[in-house]
Amino acid sequence: MRCRRCRAAAVVEVRRHNAAFCRPCFLHHVREQVRRAIALHDLIRPEDRVLVAVSGGKDSLALWDLLLELGYRADGLYLGLGIGDYSARSGQVARAFARSRGAALVEVDLARDYGFDVPTAGRRGSRSTCAVCGLSKRYVFNRAALEGGYDVIATGHNLDDEAATLLGNTLRWQTEYMARQSPLLPAEPGFVRKVKPLYRVSELETAAYAFLRGIDYVVEECPLVAGNTQLRYKQALNQLEQTSPGTKAQFLLGYLERAATLFAAEDRSQLRPCERCGQPTPGRFCAFCRARAQVLGEPLAPVSDREIAGESSEEVLAAEVYGPAAVGGRHP
Amino acid sequence: MRCRRCRAAAVVEVRRHNAAFCRPCFLHHVREQVRRAIALHDLIRPEDRVLVAVSGGKDSLALWDLLLELGYRADGLYLGLGIGDYSARSGQVARAFARSRGAALVEVDLARDYGFDVPTAGRRGSRSTCAVCGLSKRYVFNRAALEGGYDVIATGHNLDDEAATLLGNTLRWQTEYMARQSPLLPAEPGFVRKVKPLYRVSELETAAYAFLRGIDYVVEECPLVAGNTQLRYKQALNQLEQTSPGTKAQFLLGYLERAATLFAAEDRSQLRPCERCGQPTPGRFCAFCRARAQVLGEPLAPVSDREIAGESSEEVLAAEVYGPAAVGGRHP
Repeated sequence: MRCRRCRAAAVVEVRRHNAAFCRPCFLHHVREQVRRAIALHDLIRPEDRVLVAVSGGKDSLALWDLLLELGYRADGLYLGLGIGDYSARSGQVARAFARSRGAALVEVDLARDYGFDVPTAGRRGSRSTCAVCGLSKRYVFNRAALEGGYDVIATGHNLDDEAATLLGNTLRWQTEYMARQSPLLPAEPGFVRKVKPLYRVSELETAAYAFLRGIDYVVEECPLVAGNTQLRYKQALNQLEQTSPGTKAQFLLGYLERAATLFAAEDRSQLRPCERCGQPTPGRFCAFCRARAQVLGEPLAPVSDREIAGESSEEVLAAEVYGPAAVGGRHP
Repeated sequence: MRCRRCRAAAVVEVRRHNAAFCRPCFLHHVREQVRRAIALHDLIRPEDRVLVAVSGGKDSLALWDLLLELGYRADGLYLGLGIGDYSARSGQVARAFARSRGAALVEVDLARDYGFDVPTAGRRGSRSTCAVCGLSKRYVFNRAALEGGYDVIATGHNLDDEAATLLGNTLRWQTEYMARQSPLLPAEPGFVRKVKPLYRVSELETAAYAFLRGIDYVVEECPLVAGNTQLRYKQALNQLEQTSPGTKAQFLLGYLERAATLFAAEDRSQLRPCERCGQPTPGRFCAFCRARAQVLGEPLAPVSDREIAGESSEEVLAAEVYGPAAVGGRHP
């Protein structure tokens, strides 16, 4: 196979574009996809201070690398989740990358700074491990960005992640979540802007990018993620992609281009400050404070029966207000 | 396992309802689902003359049986497609069912009445076999119903068919088709009302119903259907259903209940009479007349360049105006 751009020997095939690329042209191709995503939705302005949520996996490290390459002022944020060796290795990899690029890495540790880790929360609380992990990430990312004076949080969600989330929300017609599925969640009072510059880049492409750029990343999936529904949606889409290359991109990009506006009015979130931490929430207490209080066995405040009854639906909304559910695998 | 309704020994399990039924209670359960579908969307009125499109497969024969059992005035319509032994056996089965119930069966034969059969059309025309078969069925059903003075055409599309069609349209965000995905397409000038009373009954349930009612039906799939994309959507949904029973029902019924209204304004079909046959079409000639002319090598009329350029998109719309694509397997 020959490179589509320069006719040299190709090293990566991108089936949905019916194209193959040599190393330099593939790196150019990925950078162009990210540049285009940023331009199309005005995700990041040149003067912005960007905080990249870095898990140690291929997507978030590729994203950090790409943003630095494109000349943005991008610091990293590493959140220690306390998932044994997996977290230890993730932290090492994130720190090594920061050192190698001379970039700043903000570190938050769930156990040290908030008194619990993800495995304990999964065992003690009423939420699944992935749910409590996802809501903790959304909470900590936003709070760290606010406290650090950043303009924007960038996460490494790729095309496969976003297509799988959209499929999950679509199979249930969760129209409020669908309304918020976008590569750009603009800043709101109490919320820093959130962007997903890799939404046009497939998982295979981010992996190839990280490999070809010589980025050392954690290859293993999170050990707690087995059987995760997000993975099942990815499998279903991969199966369809195999016989119809481009299915995932068509599904996600087609939604953003043609259908998202139909759902815009379905986003009805009304926020007020959490009575405990001050972060915005649709209820009295934000999902993070409720989860933390439950895990630590601390009462939040006397609550009425009505609020207890409303807990589960409010929970889901709160999660989504912090950004679309990030329950798939490793990236933040 | 015990029957949920009467505690007798169960013969059928319905996982998505987390229930099992004995024979009489299962037949009651299916009848109730159909009765409910008819009531919910006002599909059929007691005085209506119904034409049931009968392919000889389990779904359409179960539907005919159910409508007769529920007391409707339901005749059958059998369309000979000319697909060798498969069509021959399908016709025999449809005639035998009609005889056994003392019901009337209208017969149309594509080769005898329109000069071509489906295999020839698949070989000679520019459309896939499934596409030309689907548009022929939609055309003939409507025309036969108009000419026979029927109030409504009923087709045997079940929950699995409808969910797969919705998935295919959703993966491409074909919002115009989504707007017309409904168990009821009301009558319009030139179009008889079309209804799908089995949309709440899964494929497994229609098969069990047909079996338990002793209906002799053609078990084989159409021999031309292999690799059909509709089948791939069914497989993807079945895979998700296996770990999450109820996924298909949630997807289809959730769409109808919560999301369909968001798409209503996307249906922009503007119809006028086909210049050849008089049936309504968004173009000059309806899709059936264009397909037939192509297969028979007859010119329709001089057409402008603009119409030729618009052919493919118009084609798809024309197909849909006759009702959502019925390209899956055997049923009409």
